[in-house]
Amino acid sequence: MNRIEKLREEMKKSGLAALLLTQPMSIAYLTGVKIAPGERFFALYVDEKESALFVNVLFSVTECKGAEIKSYKDGDDPLKSVAERFPKDSLCGVDGLMPAKILLRLMALRGDLKFTDGGALTAKVRMYKDRVEQAKMRASSLQNDEVMGELIELAKKRLSEKVLAEKLLPMYLKRGGSALSFDPITGYGPHAAEPHHVPDDTMPKEGDCLVLDIGGVLDDYCSDMTRTIFLGEPSPEMRKIYEVVKGAQQAALDFIKPGVLLKDIDTVARDYIEKAGYGEYFTHRLGHGIGLEVHEEPSIGLPNGLYAEPGMCFSVEPGIYVPGLGGVRIEDLVMITDEGVELLNHFSKDLIII
Amino acid sequence: MNRIEKLREEMKKSGLAALLLTQPMSIAYLTGVKIAPGERFFALYVDEKESALFVNVLFSVTECKGAEIKSYKDGDDPLKSVAERFPKDSLCGVDGLMPAKILLRLMALRGDLKFTDGGALTAKVRMYKDRVEQAKMRASSLQNDEVMGELIELAKKRLSEKVLAEKLLPMYLKRGGSALSFDPITGYGPHAAEPHHVPDDTMPKEGDCLVLDIGGVLDDYCSDMTRTIFLGEPSPEMRKIYEVVKGAQQAALDFIKPGVLLKDIDTVARDYIEKAGYGEYFTHRLGHGIGLEVHEEPSIGLPNGLYAEPGMCFSVEPGIYVPGLGGVRIEDLVMITDEGVELLNHFSKDLIII
Repeated sequence: MNRIEKLREEMKKSGLAALLLTQPMSIAYLTGVKIAPGERFFALYVDEKESALFVNVLFSVTECKGAEIKSYKDGDDPLKSVAERFPKDSLCGVDGLMPAKILLRLMALRGDLKFTDGGALTAKVRMYKDRVEQAKMRASSLQNDEVMGELIELAKKRLSEKVLAEKLLPMYLKRGGSALSFDPITGYGPHAAEPHHVPDDTMPKEGDCLVLDIGGVLDDYCSDMTRTIFLGEPSPEMRKIYEVVKGAQQAALDFIKPGVLLKDIDTVARDYIEKAGYGEYFTHRLGHGIGLEVHEEPSIGLPNGLYAEPGMCFSVEPGIYVPGLGGVRIEDLVMITDEGVELLNHFSKDLIII
Repeated sequence: MNRIEKLREEMKKSGLAALLLTQPMSIAYLTGVKIAPGERFFALYVDEKESALFVNVLFSVTECKGAEIKSYKDGDDPLKSVAERFPKDSLCGVDGLMPAKILLRLMALRGDLKFTDGGALTAKVRMYKDRVEQAKMRASSLQNDEVMGELIELAKKRLSEKVLAEKLLPMYLKRGGSALSFDPITGYGPHAAEPHHVPDDTMPKEGDCLVLDIGGVLDDYCSDMTRTIFLGEPSPEMRKIYEVVKGAQQAALDFIKPGVLLKDIDTVARDYIEKAGYGEYFTHRLGHGIGLEVHEEPSIGLPNGLYAEPGMCFSVEPGIYVPGLGGVRIEDLVMITDEGVELLNHFSKDLIII
């Protein structure tokens, strides 16, 4: 079954007569048409019978899987043509990430329609990676393992957070990667206690921890991994925190298999950290889905009622963040298989002192 | 007057009781808080008296210009708190790029409100670059001039479009840039006739034109420039096309000064190309505004009723694209000053043969 057909099945289940998508990544996934439309209108319309891709002639799109190409020129009003397609008096879905200006205009043009957030439908189709996607996810994470090794070698030179972060992109590029999958986090000591720290000019102090949260894009698919290392001997407390986080991650990994409730994977890691006395310092969910984008469905920790199923890819990344002291996070990607779970990262989790 | 105050003035003119913004770049511009929120809710609420920034505690935001910081945690429902703030039965604006899922939920929570696209308000405030921004725009384009020189040197080695494009990012990084401002276009021969060509494995043939449309980000501000060069002696027709495009751009540049209708700048270039007999091959607007983002207001060519005013920055990029034959585009950035117009790019526009 092609991807648009899978989407139609989801539309049927949700009672949607039509769906309009504008997110380039979802459109690329569904039709094979991958462009960066900038501010130009680019949308995929799908109803029970028809599907049509609205794209500016500037992008010279000539092939599109499963949808008719509707080209328009600068100065045309493609949204008006789109609006005319929706079945009368129906419930229609829009991409959750569709720009509000498009939705507001659609509502103005078609007062008879009721619109709802249809983002979950594409997210659901994209959540299950097929064989080709699985191979790409594997390759992307292998690349990330290599980059982590090179980055840790570089960190021995005692560079600032910012300089370390800036050295990352070329490491992916020279291995055939096309970009970073997110702004990398390189944080020393107390900065490691900020899960989303932006690297600055801070230099390391003896005994500091260093959180390295990095990822690249290879062949369109994202990687994402975190290791926490130490610059000189860590304090006994940081050593203990490290072992707790490592143990929590292993407990979660051991628990994962097809059929378990995703929320329960978070609970396993959270309980482990709580029992060790650090519960209040694990301040985020355990993980997130990943694929064409670095954050996709499924979320691991929010009560979404989803169970682990073959093809799902997500991160397992417990952390303990003690303000003023430091933080430890250990993150690997996993893929659910028919039999169990495949770990996509293979970089050592032993405590590393450089 | 601070930037949020300027925005409030625009709100007053448009009769909006409140405005909710979610675009990180606009929020960074208005408050100085620059984060990459990923899928986490991040929004700036502004009404007549109050302004508040809703941000996840994970991002550790402690300073914010002109707005109160409202932190929330994973699991909280910040949008509900936001929804409660809007004045009853009022007309409210939302960011035109706000994700539809947020707008749909706001509408569900507050049936008494009428929402409209308020994107033009921030776009208008951001359109006029202040002295500091002007200096950054200048520096960013100077960097682009340098990179263009290095790229053309490299093109002498007869590399594939893709390899040429891939070499660009490191050229910006080593000069202190942080990123490409858009996916660069490097297109040989017939590919140069596609204004948005994606670089592929094509190698140059003798006499081919080569369109180089490139830009980087320096200190948050974008550059964007195009040159078309030739690999060996061009055909007489391509030589003619080159001179027509160059002449059209110069005519437009000569015409620009404070007070002219922006649409008329497009017309000057378009008339020039039409008179030369290539009107049907100039298939896009003359230019676009640029600043923190590579495409901003004002648009040059669409009938927006705007006049050139000091602080505006935009591209002037006529092109002639003859399918199957080739294309020529020449693009520079300009900034409107109190006295006239300042050209931000200084790279030669003489016909270059390598």
